[in-house]
Amino acid sequence: MKEHVRPLPSYLTNRYHGWRATTYTENRPWYRRLADAGQHPRAMVISCCDSRVHVTSIFGADEGEFFIHRNIANLVPPYNPDGDHHGTSAAIEYAVRNLKVAHVIVLGHSQCGGVAGCHAMCSGHAPELDEKTSFVGTWLDLLRPGFERVKDKPETERVTALEREAVVISLENLLTFPFVRAAVEAGDMSLHGLWNDIGEGMLWQFNPESKIFEPI
Amino acid sequence: MKEHVRPLPSYLTNRYHGWRATTYTENRPWYRRLADAGQHPRAMVISCCDSRVHVTSIFGADEGEFFIHRNIANLVPPYNPDGDHHGTSAAIEYAVRNLKVAHVIVLGHSQCGGVAGCHAMCSGHAPELDEKTSFVGTWLDLLRPGFERVKDKPETERVTALEREAVVISLENLLTFPFVRAAVEAGDMSLHGLWNDIGEGMLWQFNPESKIFEPI
Amino acid sequence: MKEHVRPLPSYLTNRYHGWRATTYTENRPWYRRLADAGQHPRAMVISCCDSRVHVTSIFGADEGEFFIHRNIANLVPPYNPDGDHHGTSAAIEYAVRNLKVAHVIVLGHSQCGGVAGCHAMCSGHAPELDEKTSFVGTWLDLLRPGFERVKDKPETERVTALEREAVVISLENLLTFPFVRAAVEAGDMSLHGLWNDIGEGMLWQFNPESKIFEPI
Amino acid sequence: MKEHVRPLPSYLTNRYHGWRATTYTENRPWYRRLADAGQHPRAMVISCCDSRVHVTSIFGADEGEFFIHRNIANLVPPYNPDGDHHGTSAAIEYAVRNLKVAHVIVLGHSQCGGVAGCHAMCSGHAPELDEKTSFVGTWLDLLRPGFERVKDKPETERVTALEREAVVISLENLLTFPFVRAAVEAGDMSLHGLWNDIGEGMLWQFNPESKIFEPI
Repeated sequence: MKEHVRPLPSYLTNRYHGWRATTYTENRPWYRRLADAGQHPRAMVISCCDSRVHVTSIFGADEGEFFIHRNIANLVPPYNPDGDHHGTSAAIEYAVRNLKVAHVIVLGHSQCGGVAGCHAMCSGHAPELDEKTSFVGTWLDLLRPGFERVKDKPETERVTALEREAVVISLENLLTFPFVRAAVEAGDMSLHGLWNDIGEGMLWQFNPESKIFEPI
Repeated sequence: MKEHVRPLPSYLTNRYHGWRATTYTENRPWYRRLADAGQHPRAMVISCCDSRVHVTSIFGADEGEFFIHRNIANLVPPYNPDGDHHGTSAAIEYAVRNLKVAHVIVLGHSQCGGVAGCHAMCSGHAPELDEKTSFVGTWLDLLRPGFERVKDKPETERVTALEREAVVISLENLLTFPFVRAAVEAGDMSLHGLWNDIGEGMLWQFNPESKIFEPI
Repeated sequence: MKEHVRPLPSYLTNRYHGWRATTYTENRPWYRRLADAGQHPRAMVISCCDSRVHVTSIFGADEGEFFIHRNIANLVPPYNPDGDHHGTSAAIEYAVRNLKVAHVIVLGHSQCGGVAGCHAMCSGHAPELDEKTSFVGTWLDLLRPGFERVKDKPETERVTALEREAVVISLENLLTFPFVRAAVEAGDMSLHGLWNDIGEGMLWQFNPESKIFEPI
Repeated sequence: MKEHVRPLPSYLTNRYHGWRATTYTENRPWYRRLADAGQHPRAMVISCCDSRVHVTSIFGADEGEFFIHRNIANLVPPYNPDGDHHGTSAAIEYAVRNLKVAHVIVLGHSQCGGVAGCHAMCSGHAPELDEKTSFVGTWLDLLRPGFERVKDKPETERVTALEREAVVISLENLLTFPFVRAAVEAGDMSLHGLWNDIGEGMLWQFNPESKIFEPI
């Protein structure tokens, strides 16, 4: 690995030293307590890897508040305990069973490259994603049922609608996990669906009665 | 889903409105440009879901800088294009092929509940994780080779050593992805391994020459 | 003090700026009037310091409504004008004589760490609280008469019963203050005893006829 | 007590039922978890009883975040383990020793009736507070050293200056508690001094270098 792993670029080293001399130093007691007493996050957030959406910023959340899983297009696969490595399912299991979070929040967003890729793939415009060897394509298969639901909408609305379906399908799939459903039905946990419009800085919330997203 | 999905707790709604009236409003041109021009992150970060480690804080990273995948124990599985859903591999593929990030940073941390669970499982003290139906246990199987490397260390050092092995094994597994290796060997991308001591606010960096972690 | 007093953590600074840009700005006329015309609260609330019980939330109380004293286990000491510093008695005197509140509400709650400590101390299981130098133990001495009343109950009911006794004893002690008794007997003020079940979100109210707490 | 303790006024009963049907119901999982897992507040806040200053509002703090002691004029007495009932000292001891909070925040405010009373008393204009039987006067004796520091200021600035001295003196007195000083000096806790201008919705922060309060 000698030739592959490198020291951190100095702009990051510099920023880390700055953080340590300021934010860390001012909050040292809190970091120490987090280290000693463990984490007690109130909520799990399932969010996209996208560099433009950081949930800690939107909700002014400090270290210790949110247990955050991030993957392409904030997708949750259906429950499938087949012994394979399932990173998303493992994160959910840990949050619900070990940390006993009170909320699971699925946060989608506008201009999602993953969702746009799924749309292109399902429309037949992205054969490279259809290859069995494409991890991105295979992952986005999880969102195919969403494409079926939106494919008859006008083209200008379709990708946004699919971004929101990514949230709804994840909520639906969450409920296929027996321990999620049990916690929700026992009143020990609640699910929440959000969609963030990056350019407008707006959060829209899934209303399960009307089945539409409404601005908060 | 009517009875399972709920509106956001009002303390989060309030904080969001506060964020929108301040941070968003002050940075609206930037958010608009991020929405219109797409993301161009410089680095991908593979980090743990743990609520105590937010890489954006440590590196003062704003929206648009880091493409962030977070899973239990910041693990990368080996390359395995078997057509199954691989969330971590999809995120890596998207970052390297689509976004062409210049760096992939694996960030481990102290007091990692996932790593402690792996240690307990491999030591025979967590039979529930050994069950084939445990997503957490199955996921942590990825770190079993690390346990073999640290099991003869003194008990007080073993879990920390395993937290660092989680970083090293992820770096090793990254290099099993042909497109990762190709990008690194072409000089288009570099890999970096970090371990964060939460209580001390310290970053330690993997030195591939000496194969040990050194404080930055 | 230079090395002991620190700037506020930035997550709180950010939230304050968010509050100022939203809640404060929307309610500026009310805050200005509160500043200019002084406070005219309708009730005094004596509540516990516990982070899980905020009376303003339960009663939707805005700025200006409740004059709130919070101490460990919502205790009122007996009237004792010995010239020492009595914070609780001072708060009561100010509320009754200066603010002429119409109600004094004592609000106890479930899972009270202070009451559990008193129970342990009186049962001989917390010698550290029995030390004369323990402020917590000395303060909880005020609740010893309550322990006498509940000690023969089954163990599973005893701590809850003692939490409710903390309310009753405070009401009794309130009536030892001549100005409290005078205001009550003149019909200018009434006393109220409540106990909040945190997990169930239930308020129970002391019924002075039956001497038991009943759900509201 | 039959004739002294009354049922809650119906406007409060109504609001409680409304809260239970909405806020509680939406957040039931969180309240249950707080009940089951106990509180882990990050900070203790020492604030005034004044009905116009609710720290949870300013900082968007939900149940579980702040352990809050409220007394007249947010005063901390000096360390004095004489075996008497000291409610403020007990709250501090519990927060520091049992809850191991990372921050203690003293929050003063404008238009403080307690501080104005102290000013009048020390200026010889409030003989009733000078009576040994006045709990308010005896309590405000704690702020007499502050009066000495501000008495030569112009009259228009003096009361505001004394409100801020109430914060500074409380910080000084906090450091007379051996367990407070030990926690601060070990880096496990930090102290913070704030003053809230009610009408302007502004927080000012004590700068221990310059010894003045500055707007945040």
